[in-house]
This record gives sequence, structure tokens and C-alpha cells, in this order.
Amino acid sequence: MLYSGGLYFGGNRYKSRYADASFATWFLRTIVFTIMAAASVNTATYTDEKPIPTTFGVLLFPGFQALDVFGPIDVLNTLALSKKLNLYIIAETLDPVTTKIAAINTSPEFSESIVPTHTFDTVPPLDFLLVPGGLGTQAPGLDPTRDFVKNIYPSLKYLMTVCTGSALIAPTGLLDGRRATGNKKIWAWVTSQGPNVNWVAQARWVVDGNIWTSSGIAAGMDAMYAFVGYIWGEEQSKDLAMTLEYERHTDADWDPFAEYWGATWPLTPGAGGGNGGAGAGG
Amino acid sequence: MLYSGGLYFGGNRYKSRYADASFATWFLRTIVFTIMAAASVNTATYTDEKPIPTTFGVLLFPGFQALDVFGPIDVLNTLALSKKLNLYIIAETLDPVTTKIAAINTSPEFSESIVPTHTFDTVPPLDFLLVPGGLGTQAPGLDPTRDFVKNIYPSLKYLMTVCTGSALIAPTGLLDGRRATGNKKIWAWVTSQGPNVNWVAQARWVVDGNIWTSSGIAAGMDAMYAFVGYIWGEEQSKDLAMTLEYERHTDADWDPFAEYWGATWPLTPGAGGGNGGAGAGG
Repeated sequence: MLYSGGLYFGGNRYKSRYADASFATWFLRTIVFTIMAAASVNTATYTDEKPIPTTFGVLLFPGFQALDVFGPIDVLNTLALSKKLNLYIIAETLDPVTTKIAAINTSPEFSESIVPTHTFDTVPPLDFLLVPGGLGTQAPGLDPTRDFVKNIYPSLKYLMTVCTGSALIAPTGLLDGRRATGNKKIWAWVTSQGPNVNWVAQARWVVDGNIWTSSGIAAGMDAMYAFVGYIWGEEQSKDLAMTLEYERHTDADWDPFAEYWGATWPLTPGAGGGNGGAGAGG
Repeated sequence: MLYSGGLYFGGNRYKSRYADASFATWFLRTIVFTIMAAASVNTATYTDEKPIPTTFGVLLFPGFQALDVFGPIDVLNTLALSKKLNLYIIAETLDPVTTKIAAINTSPEFSESIVPTHTFDTVPPLDFLLVPGGLGTQAPGLDPTRDFVKNIYPSLKYLMTVCTGSALIAPTGLLDGRRATGNKKIWAWVTSQGPNVNWVAQARWVVDGNIWTSSGIAAGMDAMYAFVGYIWGEEQSKDLAMTLEYERHTDADWDPFAEYWGATWPLTPGAGGGNGGAGAGG
């Protein structure tokens, strides 16, 4: 248990384990690391090497879905108590970004606003970008947001979308020819945004290369726990989930919501997330 | 399916059902409502009547846990698409409130900041107050925050805490003699904050009168879905969970985390959420 500055928090139980590692283990790790580092010199693009991300960005736009952001990010908030990670909150301007959508007037005072730390033009280099969804993905004026994702993608180690975040970026072409998923309730609209994407209806999350797409809203948490497991190991991910008292879904194919909302791909008549196959412009 | 202002979203499937209600049903409802309204005139304190909340507040303080807030609130964000609800974000001042804790230096740039809409002095009357937890509950200087909760409680219809939110308010005495729960990993510290509280170790959430306390972090989502079911009916709550693609835990006693972290009450030697029974000041 860690005690620091008067605050109790769940210490990293692996620290003592590493401290006990023998010299031989350390030596072997050093050799392996040196070889990996040397191997990565010759490539600037993503390979199967599994680079470790340390700088994270979250992309915000008006009408983003709060849990799309804070589900996955709170996993990282907690991980960041024991690892050096940086987070940048990115938006078109530095004005606070609201979860509210101007087009919806039913709830004039029900929203939350988040403060960006950087704009599209000022954000430092990123390893990992999280793109949330939300009803705001269906609003007009998102071209600068899409351009930002398209332009920054080649320099990223990983890109993750939650919910309709995949629909938001599909028009950039980044998902073309890739397997991807998204929100199941409005699946017909999601898939209409990327006719050349290999949409996967039955999936909690999908990994294709360095792009992770997840299903609707809460699915972003399972995707992030899976990502943490992929990068830092399943023990680390399990420890985080137990700390956050979250029961993970560890099977990427687990998805009762696809069936519930009638999401299929290719779309069948009458299917498409309860929307009767209708789609809306983004 | 609702179509509004160019945006598709999951319409309230119950609307058409209500629209079909016969005149007799409407008449009966009017009578019942009139009787209930008349009965409530004579009492200013909470009874078993189940008043409907429409104004919600979230209490923020530095070092709050993001998912404690946005897990439950995003349920309400989505509910608010079809119901007139107001949300006030409340803090000691109107400065953005960060998830960061000054005392923890390991992660200097990993935090998010939320914009308050009201201070303790300016917040309009509230029906429902959400008190999150987080490492910030263990920081000094929280007396004004506790005083705010203590002073506003008598005018609330409901008070809900998430995670160490129960430990934050325990020193006010509001939980004395009541059943309550909280974070299981630092259970010993949580329970040390309220020696006169009837702490329930094995619980996803606990309801005592109009105070709902939930277990660690992610448990706040299950508590909020249960609350929505209590107020607006289980069908409404289920529809929200399916929309947010969240698998609810509907059993308030479900809690594998209490056993995992060794949380018991009264505390047994060596128990207390992995902290060996140690406690920290709040």
C-alpha cells in the first residue's frame, strides 16, 4: 500500500515484484529491450512491434457523449497514478466543450463542459488519440475535426474510437478496408458513414492494425481495459478493474446489444439498430 | 424513433404507449395524482411517497474521480433527451475543477477539468445531489464542501454518493445510524470516517431513506440505473442501459469486490480493503 502526502491509494502491487527480479532477469530484459529499440529505428510507420504510448489525447466536440470519454479515460486516470502518462484535451478552440447539442432543446440545462488544454494547432505530438462519439457526431461543421484526425493519424501509435466516434471519422477514409464497429442502436447511420469499411456488427470492440474501434458508449471501457492489457499486461488491467470495481467484458465478441438492436452487416431489410435502415447525414 | 433537427436518436419507445392510454386511465391517473399532491402538503420532510426529482446537482472538488461523476450523470444525460431535467455543477468557486490531486506528483499532466455552473452560495434549489468520491476526499480543506452537503440535505429529495463520497460526508453525521457503503479497496479508511454509520461491506449500493450510497467508482452506474428504475420504472432504466450498451448489475447485494479486497464490517484484523486496517485523515 502506498502512502503519499497524507493520501492513501492502491499501490502498484507489481513494484515489489519487479524489485525482487533477479539480476539475470534484468540483464535479459535489457538485452531484449536493446534489440527491440534497434529494430524500431528503421521504421516510422506502425508495425507489429507494440510501441508503448505515454502521451494521450482526447478529441472533444460539442455534443460528445460523456461516458465515451470518461469511461476509458478514468481507467487511464487511475493507471497514471503509477505510470508517467500525459493527457491532452483537444478541441477546435480553447473554449470549454459541452456535451449539449444545440439542435436538441428538450434539456436546456442538462450538460457538462470540459476545458480543453490544446487546440488542433497547438497539441504536442501524441502517441494515442481517443475519439468519442455522441449525438454531436451528426451535427454539421465537423470537417475541421475530421481533418485533425486524418492529419494526425500517421504520427500516432494508436487510434481508438468509442461509439459513433467510428462514424465521425469514417468519412476521412481512415477506416476504409479495415474491420471496425460502433454504436448498435443507430447502426444503420454508423455504417452509412463508411461504405468501404468492413463493419463488424457483433463486437464489443474491434482491433485492426493500430486502430481500435468500440461499440456503443459503455463498450469504450472494455476496449480500454483490453488495450491496457495489450500494452501493460493483463495483470495490470485486472488490477485497475478491481480498483475501479468494474466487471470487465474480456471477450471482444461479446455483444448482446447487436442482437437487441437488430444490427447486422451487410444491413438486412428492417435491420440497422431499430432505425429501419434509415441514415442521417454527418 | 425520434428525428429532430437533423439528429437521429433513440426515441422514448413508451411515448406511443402513453398516447394510446384510454380516457379512463388518464382520469384514474389524475385522481391518484391529485390525492398524492394533497397528501404531500402536510409534510416538508421525506416520506415514503417517492417524489420525482427534476433538478439535479453534482458536487465537485479537486481530485474527484471522473467516473464517479460521469458514470451516473451520463445515464441522466441520456434520460434528459426525453425528460425535462436540469443539472447544476456545483463547486466552492466557479473556477474549473480538476480531477488532479496536488499531493500526487506522479502524473503532472494527466487530468481533466470540469466547469462549474454554480457555487455553494448560488446554486438554485435542488431535488437530487450527487456526491462523488476520489482521492481528493482525503485532502485537507474540505469543511466548506461538507458544510454545503449538510446544509442542503434537508431540502433535498435524494442524496446519492459514489465510492468515497460516503466517506467525504460521513463526518457531517448525515449517515449516522444509517446503512451505507463505499469503496472496497480502501474500506478501512472509508469506515473510519463514520464510526456511527452502519456500514455494509457486501453491497453494490445501499438505500436508506432518501440516501443512496454506492460502492467503488463503477458501482455508481448501477446505483443510478437502480434509481432511475425506482423513480421512472424498470422499463425506462432498461431502455437507457440498452441505449448506453451497459450491462447492469441489478442486484444491490452483488459485490465480488468486497471479498477481493477483504472488506468486512466490523473490521476484522488484517481486513479493510488491503490497507491492513489503516486509516487516513479526511
